[in-house]
Amino acid sequence: MKRDNFLKCREDGNFIITAGFVHNLLKNTIPKLSFNENFNKEDFKKWQKKLIKKLKELMGISRISNTTPQSKIIWSKKREKYKIEKWEIYIEGKNVVPLLILIPDQIKYQKKLPAVLCCPGSLHTKEQLAGEPEIKKTYAVSRHPERDKMALWYAKAGIIAIAVDNPGVGELGECWPIEKIDYVRDLISLQLIQLGSSYLGLSVYQKIRILDWIENLEFIDKKKIAISGHSLGTEPAMVVGVIDKRIKALVFNDFVCNTLERGWKVTKLEKGFRHSSLSEPIPGFPVSGLWHSIPGLWKWFDYPDILCAFAPRPLLITEGGPTYNLLKIWKAYEILKSSNKVSIHYYPKYEKVRKYNNVEIPENINMKTYLKYAYVDVKNHCFKENLAIPWLLKIFGVDNKF
Amino acid sequence: MKRDNFLKCREDGNFIITAGFVHNLLKNTIPKLSFNENFNKEDFKKWQKKLIKKLKELMGISRISNTTPQSKIIWSKKREKYKIEKWEIYIEGKNVVPLLILIPDQIKYQKKLPAVLCCPGSLHTKEQLAGEPEIKKTYAVSRHPERDKMALWYAKAGIIAIAVDNPGVGELGECWPIEKIDYVRDLISLQLIQLGSSYLGLSVYQKIRILDWIENLEFIDKKKIAISGHSLGTEPAMVVGVIDKRIKALVFNDFVCNTLERGWKVTKLEKGFRHSSLSEPIPGFPVSGLWHSIPGLWKWFDYPDILCAFAPRPLLITEGGPTYNLLKIWKAYEILKSSNKVSIHYYPKYEKVRKYNNVEIPENINMKTYLKYAYVDVKNHCFKENLAIPWLLKIFGVDNKF
Repeated sequence: MKRDNFLKCREDGNFIITAGFVHNLLKNTIPKLSFNENFNKEDFKKWQKKLIKKLKELMGISRISNTTPQSKIIWSKKREKYKIEKWEIYIEGKNVVPLLILIPDQIKYQKKLPAVLCCPGSLHTKEQLAGEPEIKKTYAVSRHPERDKMALWYAKAGIIAIAVDNPGVGELGECWPIEKIDYVRDLISLQLIQLGSSYLGLSVYQKIRILDWIENLEFIDKKKIAISGHSLGTEPAMVVGVIDKRIKALVFNDFVCNTLERGWKVTKLEKGFRHSSLSEPIPGFPVSGLWHSIPGLWKWFDYPDILCAFAPRPLLITEGGPTYNLLKIWKAYEILKSSNKVSIHYYPKYEKVRKYNNVEIPENINMKTYLKYAYVDVKNHCFKENLAIPWLLKIFGVDNKF
Repeated sequence: MKRDNFLKCREDGNFIITAGFVHNLLKNTIPKLSFNENFNKEDFKKWQKKLIKKLKELMGISRISNTTPQSKIIWSKKREKYKIEKWEIYIEGKNVVPLLILIPDQIKYQKKLPAVLCCPGSLHTKEQLAGEPEIKKTYAVSRHPERDKMALWYAKAGIIAIAVDNPGVGELGECWPIEKIDYVRDLISLQLIQLGSSYLGLSVYQKIRILDWIENLEFIDKKKIAISGHSLGTEPAMVVGVIDKRIKALVFNDFVCNTLERGWKVTKLEKGFRHSSLSEPIPGFPVSGLWHSIPGLWKWFDYPDILCAFAPRPLLITEGGPTYNLLKIWKAYEILKSSNKVSIHYYPKYEKVRKYNNVEIPENINMKTYLKYAYVDVKNHCFKENLAIPWLLKIFGVDNKF
């Protein structure tokens, strides 16, 4: 077998072997609840309701409690222009999620401020988002440490920022050495899958319980609560945004990925990529990245459809994606006559020239080629404070110079 | 972190971190459709119906066709006491599953013979089951090559034997070098999960289509079709048996495992085990063995419950398991007044002395300890022709000296 010939060897005239069959299954799957550009407003509303119901089902964590979670303040510190507090939220029984809350000094002059729940990238911590020292030094993996201080950016701009960890990461995984963390996340992902949920399901549940906790904070303006996700954090941000009406705006800081199409088109091997999960085979390595797995997702919809279902609430996409994914989302807002509520940006590298706008992504490519078609500038994948802050200030009508 | 202290470090007084929370989720899960020993006959029948419905749902492959699949004979050869043929079954479109069928010479004197569908262990091939030369030499991984010729044993005893490959293995994975096979199986497992099915779902679907094909074989006695699984093969054998009434008897050649309990009790690390999937963390290795993953299974039931639902059809268990799993199955047959239809054997090593019959399996153990409590004699894990052949001959009333 030639290394660059992974797909071809799976089909041989009439003789299609198992992986080929699975490949064809993926290729021929049209998710049952895909967004349809021909929807009228009523069709859209009906579809949206169905999608939300199914999305809750797919998350698979039924809420055990909807009362206010117990909580405990751990410490409170004064910083320049804001106050930072560490809290422990008991989302269920003894199960605790620690968080950092950054409260801008404006709170001295205003009764209430808007707030944003900040969801970090895969191995980023709440400490990194808040610009606080890491609890473990080894977690400092950001390539853009200043820009990735998502919560700090929001707080400095006058918005209350709440930063949490991803399940199994940072304080939510504190007993493991950093090099074991992907193993642990794979294992808990798999156990959650076997229980009818997923890593994302747990992550979403934690955030919903934090929203329950927020409800009792009088200094937060409940009409102005946003959720903001970077990289892996876009997954819980997007899902919580769509299923929980308490979220009034969504900052999606990644490219919009058609994961099903990527799954069956990215079949060529490539040196240098470590993870595969649903996209990319690596010689000699078992599959990893199970924290992206959502059982049954592709039967029903894909990420772009979920984002469509956020319409007409305000949505910012900061790192583009294949143009047809983005057009789908535009269309959803257009159907609801709210195009002014969606704001989409490509990476600066692709802002002006985009060669593949009218081209379908080809089959049997490697990940690098896919990312080229998706207009992704990997090196510059980071929180885009230059886009997110002014946009959210405007959406929430906050008067702040940035 | 001490290597033997994986679980303890996840719980720290009131502070339970993510994996601890997932651990507690597992520990506190009571599958909704567990078999209940207090069922009366009617309760049982109602429960069985629900379990079958849910099990079909969990498999997630909806049948696209229930017509006779296309098929093509590839070759036919005479062997001593039987004839062997290779066929290709087009289970759907161009998607083909090759099989070997061994037809005993008795067919010259009898119009019809009983048949058994043989499901191999994880990396075993249909060629190995049939005692034929491997297509790839590297597949000869059996530790008990003679005993593992499951199909050959049945054929020599006068039962038509049909041998198939596991998805992604043997001819169903022929383009991959042997050392990549687990990677490929992990990848297709994950893709199937994301589509709402699983590796097992695909495996079950292939076998159901083979049963559709069998329906047109006049020389097979439709009242005497069994399914026989060894190791991984017990999973499709058990599920096909329970959901497809065309199966009249089941040979389960492995120990009966309570996978949920094993999942949260086996948390100690151990050198020398390569796979983990749902049971056992390995330092430095990503999770593998996703072909055992069934999304949502534990929410509903576990393997022993599925076997209970096979009652009152004849069932043989050849390699024991924790005694309380086996008692559950006895009880199911007793409720239906058909205890004579179930036959359960331990490994010879544990036939006479079993120390843990009245002991619950302890928590935070390693896999070796679990297997001790489950009375598993790993070295002697192989097809038990000495039990399976006479039992099936008797069940089907075949007059053959063995």
